[in-house]
Amino acid sequence: MVEVIREALKLVRKKRPLVHNITNFVVMNSTANALLAIGASPVMAHAQEELEEMIGIADSVVINIGTLDKFWIDSMIKATKVANDLNKPIVLDPVGAGATRLRTETALKILELGVTVLRGNFGEISALLGEHGKTRGVDSAEYNEEKAKELALKAAEEFSTVVAVTGKVDYVSDGKRVYAVYNGHEMLGRVTGTGCMVSAITGAFIAVVEPLIGAVSAIATFGIAAEKAYEEAKTPGSFHVRLYDWLYLLKPEDVEKLARVREIEL
Amino acid sequence: MVEVIREALKLVRKKRPLVHNITNFVVMNSTANALLAIGASPVMAHAQEELEEMIGIADSVVINIGTLDKFWIDSMIKATKVANDLNKPIVLDPVGAGATRLRTETALKILELGVTVLRGNFGEISALLGEHGKTRGVDSAEYNEEKAKELALKAAEEFSTVVAVTGKVDYVSDGKRVYAVYNGHEMLGRVTGTGCMVSAITGAFIAVVEPLIGAVSAIATFGIAAEKAYEEAKTPGSFHVRLYDWLYLLKPEDVEKLARVREIEL
Amino acid sequence: MVEVIREALKLVRKKRPLVHNITNFVVMNSTANALLAIGASPVMAHAQEELEEMIGIADSVVINIGTLDKFWIDSMIKATKVANDLNKPIVLDPVGAGATRLRTETALKILELGVTVLRGNFGEISALLGEHGKTRGVDSAEYNEEKAKELALKAAEEFSTVVAVTGKVDYVSDGKRVYAVYNGHEMLGRVTGTGCMVSAITGAFIAVVEPLIGAVSAIATFGIAAEKAYEEAKTPGSFHVRLYDWLYLLKPEDVEKLARVREIEL
Repeated sequence: MVEVIREALKLVRKKRPLVHNITNFVVMNSTANALLAIGASPVMAHAQEELEEMIGIADSVVINIGTLDKFWIDSMIKATKVANDLNKPIVLDPVGAGATRLRTETALKILELGVTVLRGNFGEISALLGEHGKTRGVDSAEYNEEKAKELALKAAEEFSTVVAVTGKVDYVSDGKRVYAVYNGHEMLGRVTGTGCMVSAITGAFIAVVEPLIGAVSAIATFGIAAEKAYEEAKTPGSFHVRLYDWLYLLKPEDVEKLARVREIEL
Repeated sequence: MVEVIREALKLVRKKRPLVHNITNFVVMNSTANALLAIGASPVMAHAQEELEEMIGIADSVVINIGTLDKFWIDSMIKATKVANDLNKPIVLDPVGAGATRLRTETALKILELGVTVLRGNFGEISALLGEHGKTRGVDSAEYNEEKAKELALKAAEEFSTVVAVTGKVDYVSDGKRVYAVYNGHEMLGRVTGTGCMVSAITGAFIAVVEPLIGAVSAIATFGIAAEKAYEEAKTPGSFHVRLYDWLYLLKPEDVEKLARVREIEL
Repeated sequence: MVEVIREALKLVRKKRPLVHNITNFVVMNSTANALLAIGASPVMAHAQEELEEMIGIADSVVINIGTLDKFWIDSMIKATKVANDLNKPIVLDPVGAGATRLRTETALKILELGVTVLRGNFGEISALLGEHGKTRGVDSAEYNEEKAKELALKAAEEFSTVVAVTGKVDYVSDGKRVYAVYNGHEMLGRVTGTGCMVSAITGAFIAVVEPLIGAVSAIATFGIAAEKAYEEAKTPGSFHVRLYDWLYLLKPEDVEKLARVREIEL
């Protein structure tokens, strides 16, 4: 798998995919910077009047419901339809699903239209699967490694999509296989929007490789960047800055060497 | 007082209060990061459909009118009502009150519904008290130490709330007592949204201690972080980064040692 | 010209112009910080109810269409009218013009109402001139030095405004003269919103000097800050931080020494 991740990063750098984002106000700047740092090209647009044209020139679409309202939900629904019509891969980040019905229902509507990768934390994906997930704001809740693995597998089956349940260990499944990614650092929890950054970067990877590989590659690459950043910066402000630096600095060979990914026996 | 501030910071770190923010587009990212750095947990949500649920799980609410419009004003009004119904403490940051009638009136409407802490600069709080405050954008105007002290006291009486008038010296009053906080650094004026960060952090503190103590503790802690940041970084970009670092690094004992707070004789 | 740029920066520092921005969600924080760093004072407001008052106290207006929708377009149109009525200089940044009709048409509507400076990349300004510009998201497309120079000149004539076409070399024209600015660094392309920052800073400069001089000065100063930042930071996260630092640190004499600007023979 590590060679595959190496090649995926090479492709992102080479093709510079244009990633169209309808995301939340909190992370627009930081996800755009994460995409630029890794070597992709971000664009943000939410007006319904321009979605067809913008998605038409994009290589993938990322939908993030972190600060939604009626107006933005309509844009997200339309963007998902347009992306499906145009065969552009779609990442859904169901931020806060489980915390409010509006979020759970919006995420489910988008899932029904069809997405390529669903990436969320344990509480969010649990809520979407109809289990009682107590979401604490936008943080993961009641994470449990064994359960997280099963959750990724079940959700992938249920929603017929690749599902990434991120947490201490990240599990990525297409409903048949499950990969565990052990990279990352807990300091990511002290910077806002790092989960959203992973989703955005997943959008870059699935624009150039198939979804399961793309999601695993994005999560591993981001986790490695976080580990390298933490080696140099133990405090959240400086860590945040070095995170962008390392998304930029990481070479495909570094990722091959440092990725800690394995397929889980089912 | 300094021991009380030390204990307040300990409580924030221990309880990790969930702070619900309806704030302006400019500072959503930076206030979320400030809350995470100090040890609290931020959530941003403005859709009326989800305010009850979201505030229901939150420990406090911060309303900031920095980039308001009709749609957002309705959300702010509703959030204030919901928070009052649910007995959640509320911080109001009346950004730009005095600069436009829309801002002054919106802030007054929210104040009438009842807030726990009102934090603004001299021009903003003056405008709200019906005095002729010339607000220069979102910066303080015509600040004067003696006047600022009286302003905090009078506004606290008038609005039956804790009022913090921040400036060169910060004055915090509950209408009976006035505390002066001498911490802080003028480099804060070169980074956008640092006033908004104080308001957000006040939301974290008043979730765990009573309002007057909470406001003083938040302002002193933030000011100390700024002083420490400036010791290491004399330029705004680097200072901004180190500010988050120090919000994270400050120990309760550091705050006890470095807080320059005193109760003013009336 | 370099002495003129030196004096322009001196004036920005002395007068601290208040720059009113209606800009996109992605860059609100970073453009506010860029304005503060250079020594200007930012304000963001988009509610139609408060535009007259806010622009009334502002020294210039910056309109940036990077994340537009119907509601915001109405605000931009109104702000342009108000600014013209009140004789406040206006910068238009037509982000993504050419990528979608909505953006091209919105930019053209604003241009028809009259702006003081139009600043965009090659693809955007080309699209506005009715040429077939393939805009790749918000990046420049098919840039060509000779064409860029002509484009600045033609667009300035066509729209009766100062036009800055930024790219590897930046060309600024008022329809009679063309200046080339050679400052800048390609690392700017790895940080989101750096073009938007130049537009915002142009707003600060044209508040204190005439438009052609102001645009050239803003672009040269920003480019020099980028060069200095890159000397110290070769990676995008750190570069971004040092960019603010250098906007703050640059002295008028540094700018005089380091500006690489010349008038082009026509």
